[in-house]
Amino acid sequence: MSSPFGLHRVVEPAGVLPQQAWRLSTEDRTWPDEVVVDVEVLNLDAASYRQLREQHGEPEKVRRAVLDIVTERGKMHNPVTGSGGMLLGTVRAAGPESPLGLKPGDRIATLVSLTLTPLRIDDELASWSGESEQVPCRGTAVLFGRSIAAVLPDDLPDELALSVLDVCGAPALTDRVVREAGVEPSVLVLGGGGKSGSLSLAAARRAGAGRLVALVPTQAEADAVRASGLADDVVLADARDPVAVSEAVGTPVDVTVVCVDVPGCEHGAVLATADGGTIIFFSMATSFSAAALGAEGLAADVRMLIGNGYVPGHATFALDLLRTTPGVRDLFERRERQTPP
Amino acid sequence: MSSPFGLHRVVEPAGVLPQQAWRLSTEDRTWPDEVVVDVEVLNLDAASYRQLREQHGEPEKVRRAVLDIVTERGKMHNPVTGSGGMLLGTVRAAGPESPLGLKPGDRIATLVSLTLTPLRIDDELASWSGESEQVPCRGTAVLFGRSIAAVLPDDLPDELALSVLDVCGAPALTDRVVREAGVEPSVLVLGGGGKSGSLSLAAARRAGAGRLVALVPTQAEADAVRASGLADDVVLADARDPVAVSEAVGTPVDVTVVCVDVPGCEHGAVLATADGGTIIFFSMATSFSAAALGAEGLAADVRMLIGNGYVPGHATFALDLLRTTPGVRDLFERRERQTPP
Repeated sequence: MSSPFGLHRVVEPAGVLPQQAWRLSTEDRTWPDEVVVDVEVLNLDAASYRQLREQHGEPEKVRRAVLDIVTERGKMHNPVTGSGGMLLGTVRAAGPESPLGLKPGDRIATLVSLTLTPLRIDDELASWSGESEQVPCRGTAVLFGRSIAAVLPDDLPDELALSVLDVCGAPALTDRVVREAGVEPSVLVLGGGGKSGSLSLAAARRAGAGRLVALVPTQAEADAVRASGLADDVVLADARDPVAVSEAVGTPVDVTVVCVDVPGCEHGAVLATADGGTIIFFSMATSFSAAALGAEGLAADVRMLIGNGYVPGHATFALDLLRTTPGVRDLFERRERQTPP
Repeated sequence: MSSPFGLHRVVEPAGVLPQQAWRLSTEDRTWPDEVVVDVEVLNLDAASYRQLREQHGEPEKVRRAVLDIVTERGKMHNPVTGSGGMLLGTVRAAGPESPLGLKPGDRIATLVSLTLTPLRIDDELASWSGESEQVPCRGTAVLFGRSIAAVLPDDLPDELALSVLDVCGAPALTDRVVREAGVEPSVLVLGGGGKSGSLSLAAARRAGAGRLVALVPTQAEADAVRASGLADDVVLADARDPVAVSEAVGTPVDVTVVCVDVPGCEHGAVLATADGGTIIFFSMATSFSAAALGAEGLAADVRMLIGNGYVPGHATFALDLLRTTPGVRDLFERRERQTPP
């Protein structure tokens, strides 16, 4: 019997989850709840690609290293960094018991890591120079019953859609928490000018937020968020300075969403949140112990959520926010212009 | 004006919270929302005491080191480990605006860290040999408006009361989450035989849990928890093995409480929890990123809470659970017998 978590594809060591496994099976036999994907592009995780470049130097050797990893492990799971990436492809076949709602011909992006996705490469990566994280690739990948994949929209450039999908858990969970928080709760987004931050602002507004505050680190970013119209108040402070955050925000808010990807933002979030309020930590730089001990040290009766990247319907929800909120798209396109290729 | 967080006692650097400060003021002037405490015993954090012993060797030098730290910093904040401990004492004076509900003569334990508690030592620690984490001490400490202190009960030995107070956030938050989770939610406690685990089992039962499962690592602990009657089912598994946890628990539960103080329990908690359910992570060994990425990788729509050590009324609630649930006291006393002094 197949497992929705892919246990049936684990070759070694036996009995662990696919992400922990050293090697996955890429055998052609497919199970009734699996989806088979014709791979088009692998997007290597930035940390993984950097490590491979540092270790192997020449692009041709980097190409060979990726091939070797996938051949040996049955997945693109960098053994040094522990990270993977995601892929783009087209659905070849969807098993009769797959709950993912995909059909042959759908162009999709996987939203679960390559570190748990069975992958076989069929073209020796002949079209990849080894000089970019974007790896053109002919190959076969498998999605499990509990995998997550999003159908790529026709009306948006791939790059823009992928950058929304990358952070789509944040607006979906913000939506849920703001709706649960009562009538017109006040909401603060730390890092409101970023990708997850701007989507979270738009989600909070749509979910019925009252006063909506964006905290940003620079005047330029403050100007951009003000121009976007996504927040009622835009305040300037270093999110790592709890006293500065608290003074900038003023009256503590009902819901705080942390989207600043630097360590040390836990205490500011606690101070800025009213008793009985909720903090959602989306930043992967969050320290569990700093949050737990910080709230205790401040005797703050706040509910603190670990931002789960998965909420049902999150991809559709985030893409729809981008389409219907001009300010969000403006901020995304501003960032793209600023990021070197 | 005084700050409920103690900002008015920060000497340097200016503008940070007391825990981040290098030095706090122990001046005799007290503010209207402060409470002044005659110190009786300092309980040094175990990691801090070990470090001091390793660095200074002789007990007399350890004694001198603690004195020097407190004299220089105005608080017992070990600069190497970053940790403190807690203290026992008697309330000398409570300001008219203090919200803590304490009165002169109350014997109390502080539940916030010594790293943020202004402290002056008045007896040069003359009664302490330097050979134990328990430091008899005549001195003066200050509590702020938002500090947390618990009145020590008359009917329990100090040691037992302190060991309950040490983990009192866990049962209080478990109570709240189980009550919010609907009618007779099923509840799993990972590490159900420990201090926070047994109190959480008792809290879940009182809050109306349906099926109540304790997961423990050894047969001896399973026997003890079974004898305590705190759980409906007691199952044996390594909490770090997600597949083993999932198989031992069977049908996923509505609420999972993680009280196992070893790293790597995040994925087991996710697998054991039903979609729409809640996980409370109390273990300080929890990894934020392992929890966030684990739930995403398993496409698990679970709510994940960072266990906040502070819930209003938590100390009274936990002590009451111990008094009224014989099985909890049995497990606490069993642990005390096993722990070398």
